[in-house]
Amino acid sequence: MVDLYEGLMTTRAMRRFTDEPVAEDDIRACLRAAVQAPSGGNIQPYQFLVVTDPDLRRAIGAVYLRAWERYEPAVAKVSPPARDEDAARRQARNVAASDELARALADVPVHVLVLMPKISMVVADDEGEMDVGPTYASVYPAVQNFILAARSRGLGTVLTTVYRVYEDEVRELLDVPDRYEVVALLPLGHPRGRWGVAPRRPAESLTSWERFGQRRG
Amino acid sequence: MVDLYEGLMTTRAMRRFTDEPVAEDDIRACLRAAVQAPSGGNIQPYQFLVVTDPDLRRAIGAVYLRAWERYEPAVAKVSPPARDEDAARRQARNVAASDELARALADVPVHVLVLMPKISMVVADDEGEMDVGPTYASVYPAVQNFILAARSRGLGTVLTTVYRVYEDEVRELLDVPDRYEVVALLPLGHPRGRWGVAPRRPAESLTSWERFGQRRG
Repeated sequence: MVDLYEGLMTTRAMRRFTDEPVAEDDIRACLRAAVQAPSGGNIQPYQFLVVTDPDLRRAIGAVYLRAWERYEPAVAKVSPPARDEDAARRQARNVAASDELARALADVPVHVLVLMPKISMVVADDEGEMDVGPTYASVYPAVQNFILAARSRGLGTVLTTVYRVYEDEVRELLDVPDRYEVVALLPLGHPRGRWGVAPRRPAESLTSWERFGQRRG
Repeated sequence: MVDLYEGLMTTRAMRRFTDEPVAEDDIRACLRAAVQAPSGGNIQPYQFLVVTDPDLRRAIGAVYLRAWERYEPAVAKVSPPARDEDAARRQARNVAASDELARALADVPVHVLVLMPKISMVVADDEGEMDVGPTYASVYPAVQNFILAARSRGLGTVLTTVYRVYEDEVRELLDVPDRYEVVALLPLGHPRGRWGVAPRRPAESLTSWERFGQRRG
């Protein structure tokens, strides 16, 4: 049993996995937790696609690796330099782990894709159209619930969108209709790493009180 | 102590609150959990704005109520009819609770706004620009962590974006620069309701296996 708050604080991205298979019951439990996340008007605007077939995972892995090999150098070029040596070391470690994942994705026992319909509801009245917020607001909370539910079952995953460089190819491989955007890939397995508080900019430095820009210690 | 998986399954939207004030320590704990959520390249593209001042909450409440009074009828007009009587009853209850929240928002002790910079990184190479996914993917997981952390401290909240109808007014009230999108409002307090598994379309009906459209029991 993992304590809720402890789980929130120590669930981190896992990019290296053992060969141990994942029980279908565990996958289903993660999906059940995912749908309990909030969605606007309770519309649940998502679909999940669970891929365990080795040939399909190999095919996804091949597309993903090509995407990663374009993505990584292009992102590196526009990323701000690390603030200090510690940050630089951490960044290098993350890139190395992401590179390893891109090369080993086919071996991760389960690939969960999260799909979101592209059609958005137009809400209007006599005064005109209203901004009712992005549909993503109703999808990524479910993704986070999935990640946390995996943790509660001893499973690790990482939220990645790198495949989007070649999203059309991923859709085609898996018969996903064009009307869906693939908003997340969650490679799921038994993690090699340990859970722990991941390095982050502290909340205090990102929080204003009462009015924007008013910091409080 | 709440078990992680249990917490994921039973954290539901809370729209009615007691008058009990919220400890600043609890708000800070929720924010610390929020920033532990994953973000692409660990960029943490969000800011939080915590409003407790009664005059500011009243001002936000007034804007929110005007937004709600345009939003609700306009959404009702385009929403599909409920599938059955149970669903219709639930929907009516939710609208009633949302209406109550819109009228009582000023009294909710804490309003947390989540801000996201509008500027997005352009990633490109010789072959052209790359789709690296929406920035929302790096923000709403943090919002969900906040909601769950609140739960772990006995606090309730609800993710709402209704204020977006008049987002400019909210920004102006709180000195939020134009370069930020207000992506969530989280009214935070001690809930009147009980935690429990909220009604959802079941995960099985939203899940394909191996290829899109292949259902499995």
